[in-house]
Parts: sequence; structure tokens; C-alpha cells
Amino acid sequence: MNHKTKHSLSQRWLIPVCASLALHGLAQAETPAQANADQPSSQWMTGFPPAPERIIRNSDADFFAGEKLRWTVCHMQELLPTKILHRGLKPAVNLDYQLDADLASVSFTPTGTQDSMTWEQAFTVNKTDGVIVLHKGKIVYERYDGCLDEQGLHASMSMTKSLIGLLAETLIAEGQLDENALAGDLVPELKGSAFGSATVRQIMNMTTSLKYSEDYSDPEADVWKYSQAASSMPKPGDYKGPRSYFEYLQTVQAEGEHGKAFAYKTINTDTLGWIISRNTGKSVTELLSERIWQPIGAEQSANFTIDSIGTPFAGGGLSAGLRDLARIGQLMLNDGKLNGEQIVPAAAIKNIRRGGDPKLFTKAGYSSMPNGSYQSMWWHFHNANQAYAARGVHGQTIYIDPSAEMVIVRFASHPQAANAGSDPTSLPAYQAVADYLMK
Amino acid sequence: MNHKTKHSLSQRWLIPVCASLALHGLAQAETPAQANADQPSSQWMTGFPPAPERIIRNSDADFFAGEKLRWTVCHMQELLPTKILHRGLKPAVNLDYQLDADLASVSFTPTGTQDSMTWEQAFTVNKTDGVIVLHKGKIVYERYDGCLDEQGLHASMSMTKSLIGLLAETLIAEGQLDENALAGDLVPELKGSAFGSATVRQIMNMTTSLKYSEDYSDPEADVWKYSQAASSMPKPGDYKGPRSYFEYLQTVQAEGEHGKAFAYKTINTDTLGWIISRNTGKSVTELLSERIWQPIGAEQSANFTIDSIGTPFAGGGLSAGLRDLARIGQLMLNDGKLNGEQIVPAAAIKNIRRGGDPKLFTKAGYSSMPNGSYQSMWWHFHNANQAYAARGVHGQTIYIDPSAEMVIVRFASHPQAANAGSDPTSLPAYQAVADYLMK
Repeated sequence: MNHKTKHSLSQRWLIPVCASLALHGLAQAETPAQANADQPSSQWMTGFPPAPERIIRNSDADFFAGEKLRWTVCHMQELLPTKILHRGLKPAVNLDYQLDADLASVSFTPTGTQDSMTWEQAFTVNKTDGVIVLHKGKIVYERYDGCLDEQGLHASMSMTKSLIGLLAETLIAEGQLDENALAGDLVPELKGSAFGSATVRQIMNMTTSLKYSEDYSDPEADVWKYSQAASSMPKPGDYKGPRSYFEYLQTVQAEGEHGKAFAYKTINTDTLGWIISRNTGKSVTELLSERIWQPIGAEQSANFTIDSIGTPFAGGGLSAGLRDLARIGQLMLNDGKLNGEQIVPAAAIKNIRRGGDPKLFTKAGYSSMPNGSYQSMWWHFHNANQAYAARGVHGQTIYIDPSAEMVIVRFASHPQAANAGSDPTSLPAYQAVADYLMK
Repeated sequence: MNHKTKHSLSQRWLIPVCASLALHGLAQAETPAQANADQPSSQWMTGFPPAPERIIRNSDADFFAGEKLRWTVCHMQELLPTKILHRGLKPAVNLDYQLDADLASVSFTPTGTQDSMTWEQAFTVNKTDGVIVLHKGKIVYERYDGCLDEQGLHASMSMTKSLIGLLAETLIAEGQLDENALAGDLVPELKGSAFGSATVRQIMNMTTSLKYSEDYSDPEADVWKYSQAASSMPKPGDYKGPRSYFEYLQTVQAEGEHGKAFAYKTINTDTLGWIISRNTGKSVTELLSERIWQPIGAEQSANFTIDSIGTPFAGGGLSAGLRDLARIGQLMLNDGKLNGEQIVPAAAIKNIRRGGDPKLFTKAGYSSMPNGSYQSMWWHFHNANQAYAARGVHGQTIYIDPSAEMVIVRFASHPQAANAGSDPTSLPAYQAVADYLMK
């Protein structure tokens, strides 16, 4: 993260928000440190004390970049204040195993190349920290590396958004939330902002039109002000700006008409989180606990990073266990049922599965998703298998393939933030595994 | 906490360490806010956003004092970076219930008064957030209030020390750690400090002689420097002092001969934590997970606050679930066995249970423990029942009464930090319940 130049040392309080920025799914400049991204994460922060050059502090400008990322993604709670997402106190619901040793050697041709690569090779190439494959509800492949093990939590980045989208669809299916309502009517504080005139559906599908710049090279870009507002670190005495997600969102102005194009901006999800919390009287962590984590029998509590007034970062704050996200993928695949119980309304999943409008999506120009769409904060490939996914920077995904009855969850710490970096060695691999499983 | 006057607004980065200070078990000046300590904790931080006057931020000087304390004790993870203490992934080991409805009306006479009070009345008077009574291993009483419920975590304050003491006794019983070894031989970095010439046993029993002032009225007191070193918040650019527990501990100088008197100083426990981690190659969170939380079948993962290099605050950083501390109390009562399994060596518990030297303790002058002693970071009453306890500021306790086969765990947010505030309405209550159960 190359903005050291923009902030003097006396502004160090700002630096921890870089984590929030990266979680937003925003692109990130490559730094020289990334040349060493092969450094095993196990060498960070080991020893009592760790060697000075192996220490990662929340005040380090680069704690969310380069090789440090490989440690940081598993240790958000040690760097920032977080809010727990309770699994409850009941025993976890078991996930059955039917491991398939041959899956490791399934091969595919990475996009834009001619040389084939195996699933196992792609694991390393993609800086995978953990990956699990479910077929017909059973675990056929599972592997950990880097900073992650089976009882670890990993930053989910923008996959968080998809779970917020799932909550919204659930409330809509239950008749508790109107997708056509204006955000300004649901949260009156938003009336003076761009969100005031946007519908819940436009916010859910990110077809709002917002004057909001994520240009890192511009010190005056909105994203910096957002980061300042979002930081949970004590602010300097002379700070006069917004001090929470909610305060910031009220300042966002429109830039044209809503509903005309998809534009991926994290602030939509934080607005959706606000709408959901105002609607239910619960934080998104409480709601995810009650509606998802507890009913699916999650095996680990998760957590969210928060702002200085305890608001969970709906746009990207979740850290969770790999198998728990696999349970959620399976829940999606099963139209909201898990172990025979209807946990989420089938209509909610149906609304997500139908996908968004590819015409609105095209203008955004995602090279690895030429026919894609975005619906309820889920990414749709519109391929033969009707696969769709939750996606987060640095390679995070919950990939759901209904035709192959397959769920893949991957946590990674790929040095390139944008998924364009790992999609060529991931998306064809997922398709190859689907083809293999469907044989 | 009334030190706003000492720090300018530009030094706000310091303020979050107040939490560490209070956790140390250090006395704390009463503030006017404490007059309102009856404020229900449920009114803090509720709503989206909460009303401005109901927000608690980590930058608030008083977040660990007065009525705010009643919320803060359950939400350390939302205010500061923390390190998880994993419960593991297995189902929790059940605790059986045999509730006794009559226990609530057991009465006792608070110390220094003539009027009797019931157990139920004392619950409220002591600002109890949660209390559980085990008799012969079964839950006979359990109640929650304030910010706590059965799936919540609560700051354990200096009870943390007793668990570190238990770890040290375990390593000693296993022959892995020599109680007569000098800390300077075990951790060479400590050679130039007061700890260098202290034995492990002297550190465990806090009979070290340390030049270390905890006088809050003195802006130059060592405790402020310790707090600066311990803070996990980014430090100002001009900060030149120690940046971790380990760096600070090396600077502590001696003030006389070790072994002559008990003097309660938290830095002993952080030194013991360092010795344990150097000895085992594991953080105290990892070790508590492996040695205690996982084997006892804890139902919740816990966490520790940490310094800026991830070192858990051995002296007071634990937040845990009420029933999990009850399981640990029962483990102590059962000489290290739980559900028929020897989890901790019996010799370790025996070493703790024999108590310390009351002669060394007397000089410290604890009014509510006139015949007490301190052994392996556990407090001994040397009463007829040979009761002993883990104790933390604001009313935290694990009270173990071997004669009555009783364990009481209490989490509280009593406005007075020193336990002298709640001991008069607590210690006689514990004895009365013991008498009742032994009938």
C-alpha cells in the first residue's frame, strides 16, 4: 500500500484503516515487498518477542500488503477492535467427509495460457490459505496453508457483502423489508444524501449513482475520508470529519440517475447494513448469528471489524472459519435448507440465483467476468452451470455451482488485491473440478 | 478514571490503556459519574447509531469507569485488539444442573454492619453481571444481569493472573520449569532488571522487591510508562519509550531484597508470562487453550487484550465465559481432574492449595483478608474451610471452598475498583452459602 507519501508520521492514527480499504475490494498498487510474497506466514510474529523485522503492528503502513498480508489475513482481531458473531452454544452440525484423492490432480488450462496446471499446483500459485470442495453436501477436498488451520478465522473481505445481501433478501422474502422502498424513507438521516432517493434494490445491486471516488492517487479522494470516518482508532484532537460509517454515508452525493449501471462501491453495502439494522433493531453481527451462524450449526464464532461506535463493517469486516463458509455455500446450493431444515426462505435464495442484469454490468468492464452480473451482492457468471459467487480481494471466494452440486470456498492472500490476478488460475480450475465431479 | 487533567487532547492515543490499568487491579479514583452507576448497561451503545450521549469509544477517557464500566466489561474486544484463546472444535463438556431455589434467600451479615442481607440482595448491591454456584460439581445457582448473558464474555481482570499461576505450577509439576531458577537465567534479556535476580517462585508469589510506583497522582509514576508500553494503539511519532510488555519489563529496577514481603504488582505476572512463553515456545493464550480450555470442554473461546506486538496481557487481559471459569474452579476443587480425567497434575493444584506465607502477606495490609496469603497468584483466606480464590478488580472472583465442595464464580462491575468495596457484601455471603450447602 503505497500511500506513505501522503501521510506524515504524525498522522499514523490513519494507517490502520488501510485494512478497511483493502477489505473494500479496492485495487491496490503493487509494492516492492510483493516480490517476497513467498515468505512463509509462519515466520511472522513468532518468538517471545518476535525478531524486530518479523513484527507486524497495526501502526505499520504496510500491514495489509505484500508478504505481511499472508499473516494479517488470519489475525484481524489482533490488529483492530472487532465485534463477535456468536456461533451459539450448541454442538456444531457435522459436515460429512468423502475425500477424493484424485481431485488434486484434476487439470485445467489457466486463462490466457496454453500450459495446463493441476488443482494442487493452483493451490500454491494462488497463495491459498485454505480451500474446501463440497460435492452433494460432502467434503471431497480440504487443505490449509499459510496462516490458516481448521480452527482459524480468515478475513473474508468483500465476501462479507454477499452475506449482507443474503440477510436483505431474507427480510424481503419475509415481507419485513420492501425492495422498492427508498432508503431515505427507511433511514431518514439518509434523505439529504444520494442514498435517500435510491431503492433498497438499487443499493443491493449497486446500481446507485454515487459521487464517490476511489482514486488512491488523489489525496482528496472520498475513499480517504471514508477511511478516516471508519477507523476505530482514536482520532487526533483536531479531526472534524465524520466519526462513523453512518455519519459518512449521510455526506455522499449523487452523480446522475440511479438504476442505469452497475458500479461496485462498498458504501452501498454499509448503507444496506444500516437499513437492515434500522429495520430489525439488530446489528448485522447479531442478525447473522441468529439467522445463519446458529441455525447452520457453525463450528466457530466469527467476528467483524467495527468503526469507533461499534458498527460492524458490512462492506468487508467479516473474519470466519473455512468450513463455516462452506456450510453457508451449501445452504445456498440447497435453496436455504440445511439438514432438512428451511433456514433461509427459498424465495430469498431464488432472488439471488436469478442473477442481475448483464447489460447494467457490462459497463463496469470486468475482464474475467465478460458475461457477468451482480445481484443482491452476489457475482453471477451466467455460464452453462449457472455458477455464482461471493468474492473478495486477494482471492476470497464462495463459488456455488448448482449444476455440479458443488461448493468451493477459498481463503487466500494473493499479493494482487483485484481478483483479476488470481481469476485466470481459479475460475477455469473451478470449472474443471465441476466437470470432473459431474462425470 | 480521573487523569484527563494529566494528558492533553493531543495525547489521546494513551487513553485506551486505561483499560489495562484498571485490569491491573490498581486502585482507581472515584469520579462523579459513579453516582449514576445504576444506569442499566442495556442503554449503552444501543440503536443505529446510539444516541450521542450513550456512545462509548475507546478514545473516551472514562470508558473504564463509572457507569460506562457496566458496558465495557463485556465488550473489551470491541474496544481493543485481542488475541483469541481457542476452545477447540469439539462439543462442550456438559455441566449438570441441580438448581436450588432456596439458595437465593440464604442470608448473611455484611462485614461491619448489623443488618442481614440475602444472597439475592447482594447480587444487586455488588453490581453483579453474572454469578454461578457449583456444589459437588453441579450448578445449584446461576444468574446473569447487566451486560452479560450465557454466551457473553466478561473481563476477568486480575483473575487472569491466577490462570497464569496455574500454568506455571503445571510446568513445575511436569519438571519443565524450575521454581528456584532465576528469571535472568531463563530469559537472559531480564538479567539487567530487578527480575534477573528473582526466582520463578518469588515472581509467582509476588515477593519480588521492585522499584515500581503505581501512584496515579504522580504523572511520572512507572505505571504510566508501563501503560504507554502496553498500549496496542499506534504511538505518536515522537514516542521513544518501550513498545511492548517485554521491552518495559527489562527496565524495572530492584528496590531491596527479594523474598522479604508480598507486594502486589502486576508486572510480576507479565514477567511470569514471558518466562512461560520462552519455556514452552507458546503464547499464554495458546497454552491456556491446549492445557485448560480444550481439555475441560469449554463452551466458548475466550480472548486476551494484547500489546502492539501481540503479547497477551498476562496480568489482566482475559475475557471469558462465566460457566467456563466455573469449569476451571471445579478443576481446581477436583485436584486437577474433570470428568474422571487428570487434566492438570495433582501436584500443581496441591502447590497452589497449600497457600503462601501469611507473615509475608501481613505487611501489605489487606483489610478484608487479615489472615491471607498469596501463592502462585491465588489468594488464600486461611479460614476454617481453607477457601482460596482468583480475584480481580470491580468484584471478579473464582472462589473455591474445598470443605463445602463449592465453587462460586462472579463477574461484576462494581464502581469501586478495589475489592475492599464489595468484599463486605461478598465474602460473608460466600461463607453463608458454604454453610448452607454443608448442612
